[in-house]
Amino acid sequence: MGEFELIDRYFAQLGARRPDVQLGVGDDAALLSVPPGQDLVACVDTLVAGRHFPPDSHADDIGWRSLAVNLSDLAAMGATPAWATLALTLPEFDEEWLEGFAAGFAALADQHGVALVGGDTTRGPLTISVSLMGLVPAGTALRRSGARPGDLIYVTGWPGDAAAGLALLQGRLQGQGADRGALERKFRRPEPRVAFGSRLRGIASSCVDVSDGLAADLGRLVARSGAGAVVRAAELPLSRALYALAGEARAREFALGGGDDYELLYTVPPAARGRLLQLAASAGAPACHCIGEVVAGRGVRVLGERGELPLPRGWDHFSA
Amino acid sequence: MGEFELIDRYFAQLGARRPDVQLGVGDDAALLSVPPGQDLVACVDTLVAGRHFPPDSHADDIGWRSLAVNLSDLAAMGATPAWATLALTLPEFDEEWLEGFAAGFAALADQHGVALVGGDTTRGPLTISVSLMGLVPAGTALRRSGARPGDLIYVTGWPGDAAAGLALLQGRLQGQGADRGALERKFRRPEPRVAFGSRLRGIASSCVDVSDGLAADLGRLVARSGAGAVVRAAELPLSRALYALAGEARAREFALGGGDDYELLYTVPPAARGRLLQLAASAGAPACHCIGEVVAGRGVRVLGERGELPLPRGWDHFSA
Repeated sequence: MGEFELIDRYFAQLGARRPDVQLGVGDDAALLSVPPGQDLVACVDTLVAGRHFPPDSHADDIGWRSLAVNLSDLAAMGATPAWATLALTLPEFDEEWLEGFAAGFAALADQHGVALVGGDTTRGPLTISVSLMGLVPAGTALRRSGARPGDLIYVTGWPGDAAAGLALLQGRLQGQGADRGALERKFRRPEPRVAFGSRLRGIASSCVDVSDGLAADLGRLVARSGAGAVVRAAELPLSRALYALAGEARAREFALGGGDDYELLYTVPPAARGRLLQLAASAGAPACHCIGEVVAGRGVRVLGERGELPLPRGWDHFSA
Repeated sequence: MGEFELIDRYFAQLGARRPDVQLGVGDDAALLSVPPGQDLVACVDTLVAGRHFPPDSHADDIGWRSLAVNLSDLAAMGATPAWATLALTLPEFDEEWLEGFAAGFAALADQHGVALVGGDTTRGPLTISVSLMGLVPAGTALRRSGARPGDLIYVTGWPGDAAAGLALLQGRLQGQGADRGALERKFRRPEPRVAFGSRLRGIASSCVDVSDGLAADLGRLVARSGAGAVVRAAELPLSRALYALAGEARAREFALGGGDDYELLYTVPPAARGRLLQLAASAGAPACHCIGEVVAGRGVRVLGERGELPLPRGWDHFSA
C-alpha cells in the first residue's frame, strides 16, 4: 500500500458519522441517501498555495479554509451541508502537515455535521479541491437571480476584516495587539454563515457569498437578477478593529473590495423586512446591516457623502 | 471580469442539458433534483500533469481522461452518471488548450448524458480534479465488499492494453502500425464500462474498476470482502495487439500490473453465472472473461503453468 493510500485511509476516519452515508471512503465511490422532498446542492472550490493563502500558512488553517470556502457557497444557497470529498495534491509526504490539515478540516466539519465521504490524494504542487454536497427543501434554495428593484441589500458581519487580516500578515497594513489578532483570525479562520443562510429561506429574495469582495459579488448578484444596486458607503458596517488599524477611508476600501470575507450578501423585499429583523434578533449575529437597495438598470454604484465613489476591482486570479 | 471567470462561463455552455439540473454553473452552487427511490453516488479523481498523463498529452485527451476515470468509478458501483463539477488549475490562459480540453471532456460527457454543473478555475500548476455524481436504484449499488469464496472472478475487455499504450508513448515498448495505434488509443481514450456496470446490478456480488492494475485492484476488492483470490494466468485475456507487440510473458505483466485500464473487475456467484452469460451475449462487449475465483483466506495468488507467479506491484503515486 502506498503512502497516499494510507492518507486516504487516515482521512476515512475523520468527519462526522451520518446515518445517510451508506458507504464512505474506501470503495470506488460514496453511496449516499437523499431524503425525499430535498434538492441536492453541490459546489467545488480549489485552493492553490501562494494564491489563495500565504505559502507559510499553518496546515490547520489551510484545512479549515478548504472546507470553509465551500460551506460559504452552500450557506448562500440556504442549504444544509452534508457530505464532502477531498482532492488533495501534495508535494511530499509530511505527517505533521497532514495531521494539522486534517485537524483543521475536521474541526469545521464537526461544527457543521459534514461527513468526508471520498477523496483522492496525489503527488504534485500543493492544491486542495473540496467538493461539498448539501440539501435544501425542494424549491426553497436561495439564488443570485431573485433580486428586484426596491429590495433592500443586507450583508452579514464585518466585511473587510479578513482582507485587512491578510494585509497585516503580508505587511501591507501595520498594527499590533488585540485588533491585529482579531483581524488576522478573521482571515485565518473564516466562519461561514451556514445556520443564518438556511434561515434566510423564505425571507431573502436573493443571496451570494462574499468571497471576491463585496462590490464584485454584489455586481454578480444584480447581473444575474437583471438589476442594478446602489450602496451607501456610510452604511457599510466597519468593525472597530478595522477602523482602528486602517482608518475610515481605507477600511471602506477593504470592506468593498477586500475579499475572503465569506459573509452573506442578500436582498430582502420591503414586505419581508419585519421578518428579517425578527430573525436577526433571534440569531444574535451581526446579521442585519442594510447597506443599500436594488434599483432598475444595471451595475453597482457606491454613494459617498460627496457623490459616487470609484468601484474597487474585484479579486481576480490573474491580478491577485 | 477575469479571464478565469470567462473560462467558467465558457464551460457553462458545455455538457448535456438535463431536466434535473435546476441551476448549473453561475450561482454559488448547483441545484439538482434526485428522484425518489434513488441513491446518490459520488466520487472524485485528480489528474496531475506528468504523473497521471504525459506532459505532452493532447488537451482533448486530458479532458476526456479527466471524466473517464470518474465514470469508471461510477460504473464499478453500477450507477448511472448524471452531474459533474470541474476544478481546473491552469498555469496560464491558453485558449487553444482550453478548447481542446473542453472538446475532449464534452465528447465523453455527451456520450453518457453527463451535465457539467459547477466548476472552479484557478491559476497554478496543471491539475484537474473532477467530481462526479450519479444515481442508482436504492439498495442496488455494487460494492467491493460482497465477494464470497466460490464466486467466479471476471474482467471486462483486455487489461494491459492501456499500460502497453503508455509504454509505447514513452519508448519503453517498441512497435508500429495498427497494433501500436490500437494500444495507444486504449491509453489515450479509455472507454469506461458504464452501461455494462449498470447491467451487472443483481448479478455481480462485488465490483471494482481496474485503474491501478488488475492484481492490485483485485487485492483491494478481496480485502474489503474479507476473502482471497486465485487468478489463473492462462485465463487472462490478452488482446491480439498486446500479444503481438509485447509477447506472452510481458503481455501478462501488463495485464496484471499495468494500470489505466478502466475495465471492470467483478465477481459472480456460481448460481448467477447463467444470467451473466445471457447479459454478456446481449451486451456484445468482451465482457465475460473468467480469470479465477474467490477463495477463503486473504490476498491474491496468480497461478501459472509451473506454479505461483510473483505479484506485480500496484501502481503507486510515489513510484510511478
